[in-house]
Amino acid sequence: MRMYDLIVKKKTGGELSADEIKWMVEGFTKGEIPDYQMSAMMMAICFQGMTEAETLELTMAMAHSGEMLDLSRISGIKADKHSTGGVGDKTSLALLPMVSACGLTIAKMSGRGLGHTGGTIDKLESFPGFRTDIPIEQFEQNADELGIALMGQTADLAPADKKLYALRDVTATVDQMSLIASSIMSKKLAAGADLIVLDVKTGSGAFMKELKDSKALAEEMVKIGKGAGRKMRAVISDMDQPLGNAVGNILEVREAIDTLKGKGPKDFTKLVMTLGTQMLVAGGICKSEEEALKRLESVIRDSSALDRLADLISGQGGDASFVYEPEKLPQAPVQFEIAAPKSGLIQKIRCDEVGNCCLMLGGGRETKEDEIDLTVGLILTKKVGDRVTEGDTIAILHAKSQEDAEKVMKRYLDAITISNDTVEKRNLIWEII
Amino acid sequence: MRMYDLIVKKKTGGELSADEIKWMVEGFTKGEIPDYQMSAMMMAICFQGMTEAETLELTMAMAHSGEMLDLSRISGIKADKHSTGGVGDKTSLALLPMVSACGLTIAKMSGRGLGHTGGTIDKLESFPGFRTDIPIEQFEQNADELGIALMGQTADLAPADKKLYALRDVTATVDQMSLIASSIMSKKLAAGADLIVLDVKTGSGAFMKELKDSKALAEEMVKIGKGAGRKMRAVISDMDQPLGNAVGNILEVREAIDTLKGKGPKDFTKLVMTLGTQMLVAGGICKSEEEALKRLESVIRDSSALDRLADLISGQGGDASFVYEPEKLPQAPVQFEIAAPKSGLIQKIRCDEVGNCCLMLGGGRETKEDEIDLTVGLILTKKVGDRVTEGDTIAILHAKSQEDAEKVMKRYLDAITISNDTVEKRNLIWEII
Repeated sequence: MRMYDLIVKKKTGGELSADEIKWMVEGFTKGEIPDYQMSAMMMAICFQGMTEAETLELTMAMAHSGEMLDLSRISGIKADKHSTGGVGDKTSLALLPMVSACGLTIAKMSGRGLGHTGGTIDKLESFPGFRTDIPIEQFEQNADELGIALMGQTADLAPADKKLYALRDVTATVDQMSLIASSIMSKKLAAGADLIVLDVKTGSGAFMKELKDSKALAEEMVKIGKGAGRKMRAVISDMDQPLGNAVGNILEVREAIDTLKGKGPKDFTKLVMTLGTQMLVAGGICKSEEEALKRLESVIRDSSALDRLADLISGQGGDASFVYEPEKLPQAPVQFEIAAPKSGLIQKIRCDEVGNCCLMLGGGRETKEDEIDLTVGLILTKKVGDRVTEGDTIAILHAKSQEDAEKVMKRYLDAITISNDTVEKRNLIWEII
Repeated sequence: MRMYDLIVKKKTGGELSADEIKWMVEGFTKGEIPDYQMSAMMMAICFQGMTEAETLELTMAMAHSGEMLDLSRISGIKADKHSTGGVGDKTSLALLPMVSACGLTIAKMSGRGLGHTGGTIDKLESFPGFRTDIPIEQFEQNADELGIALMGQTADLAPADKKLYALRDVTATVDQMSLIASSIMSKKLAAGADLIVLDVKTGSGAFMKELKDSKALAEEMVKIGKGAGRKMRAVISDMDQPLGNAVGNILEVREAIDTLKGKGPKDFTKLVMTLGTQMLVAGGICKSEEEALKRLESVIRDSSALDRLADLISGQGGDASFVYEPEKLPQAPVQFEIAAPKSGLIQKIRCDEVGNCCLMLGGGRETKEDEIDLTVGLILTKKVGDRVTEGDTIAILHAKSQEDAEKVMKRYLDAITISNDTVEKRNLIWEII
């Protein structure tokens, strides 16, 4: 087999065989196929696309390029969740304890990544003593006995994807639907769950801005997952403004705890319940969506969802008392209220700029080496469609210093639009696949 | 400027500016832009194409990446000729002395290259003592005083093209019209001629098999040349069977000498006269094609064309007596006649396979290090459309050994088709641009 011939085949609109894709991914991972041939192939794929079969094969080949986690020693249906990312997205913090309390098993390995806040793992480290660098044996035991365990990514999951993504990133070949889908799904498949729910965001603050693109990506990922024998669900949810009210690590933990108590923001609660419903039905825990919703409501009411978060924390060395008394969690020294500069309806809150505000406050990572300040962030007290009078508090900054807060305030004010125009209401849940 | 942004621009159908193309070619040549980004760009160009302005800029940037030959110290209109290549293509050997005898100046730098025979320079080395590694001063003096000089490529002409072509060659991005045109023209522009005539082949034995592609390539190259201020002409000529009768270095030299005496094969003579006519008119030596044709006929008749070849040979240390007594040129030890295996009309002679026959006999180079045997080759005594009776000689192999000849005979017989079907006559000259 020659890579040259595979490039010609793809360039001229042909379909690569399973063997060809496997050979290509293996050769590339080993460094036998040079970057310059792979980037030509990626660009050809951007123009010619990939068939469903090709996409599945590429995903499988990348998943198998490293360790494939074996969760079979853990009892129950092992469920995983993936979000395409957005601002204020603390969904896992509330969703995973909830569905675990309902009977699904969570045994999830996560990376930290870069962003305007930390990832789920960083956020959980708000609880004193909580560790994610636990041995795999403890991870398996906790998942089996407590029904929930989360560990930092130690295994070399889908190294081919890592290498390929790095190449795509510098050759302008990232934005191809099948390549995006196979990149995400290769890591998810390697992570070993039986059931995967995807939260695919849509809107100006999402990676996919258009509903049709978000839908296409969701459909493609669901097909891959099903093709690989996993139970799959995808929810297309809105990311045109930040999700919930809190943006920032500890602030988001608190909002998740509120939600586990049934006191979370309406939009965030709705998303968590929708994802949870889909997971419980897909996992066979509940027979219908109605039943699943009732089940989720009951684990909130009887506090078993909150208790499951406490189990997760204490099971991994953390102080679970903070779950019940979140006011003990550290606070940023400065709380700074931002006043509405004029009266009117909030038309727009730009997600990317709110993310940048959090980053400026010190709540995220720009490079792998950056230290996150878990206390800082923003509480959005007013959201799109809310009517405000000049001087009303529209957001509260949690900052390290007054100076920081003042700088970020300016940026936040630039990120929002207030006028008397009518605001068209957007859906929170666009579609379920 | 970032290469990433240029890739995005091209990928999404934008037009690169002159500055961007210049920056890209310079960066790539210096190794500052990595191969993997350049190959992604090349693949994007394969799908999106290049505008006329982009193609000219790319050509100019590649031409200026190395030395630009300055022929201004040589008097007269300096003319150059380029062929896209084929089998039996000894055109330069007859054409250049002819147009030089008519008043154009030939000051041409050529490479050796790979192929089923050597290049023009290799063929000329059939004359004992003839040297192409002459100093540039002698090259200039000969061109000025004798009207003709040919030297081996010593200067670093269009190194960017060399590097880019090597990358395109392994990433399946060779077959894009604008890239092909700019690759050829960058070297031609760097070689410094005022007037360039292009012999663009078409047919099964040509790089461009379809007339429309050959025409598109010719038009693109003519536009580039004119855009760079050169006098340009292109002739689309047939390469559906080998040109003339001789294939092989010394055999072709003899056929060229025959042609300079007015005794060449009809097809080859016609092509030489057509190219010569275009050169004389484009160079302003003659006012009309009729006048140019008469002029060419006169330099054959009065032997001044043949004398000009003799000048070229003796001017560069060669023994010009061989021009007048070509029978003194060395001959291969074995002459082997191939008999027609049946009676009928010759329907087809596959160029690529005839080329391979010559290569098998030892007449060409597969790698740069290969030594060429100048004596071996084939004389095609029958061509497409000729009627043969079983047992007629259809070709004569000039071989090193009987064994070689027998092996090649089989291949030659596989390369031709004889039947009683009528043969559609193809044009020799398809178009003049």
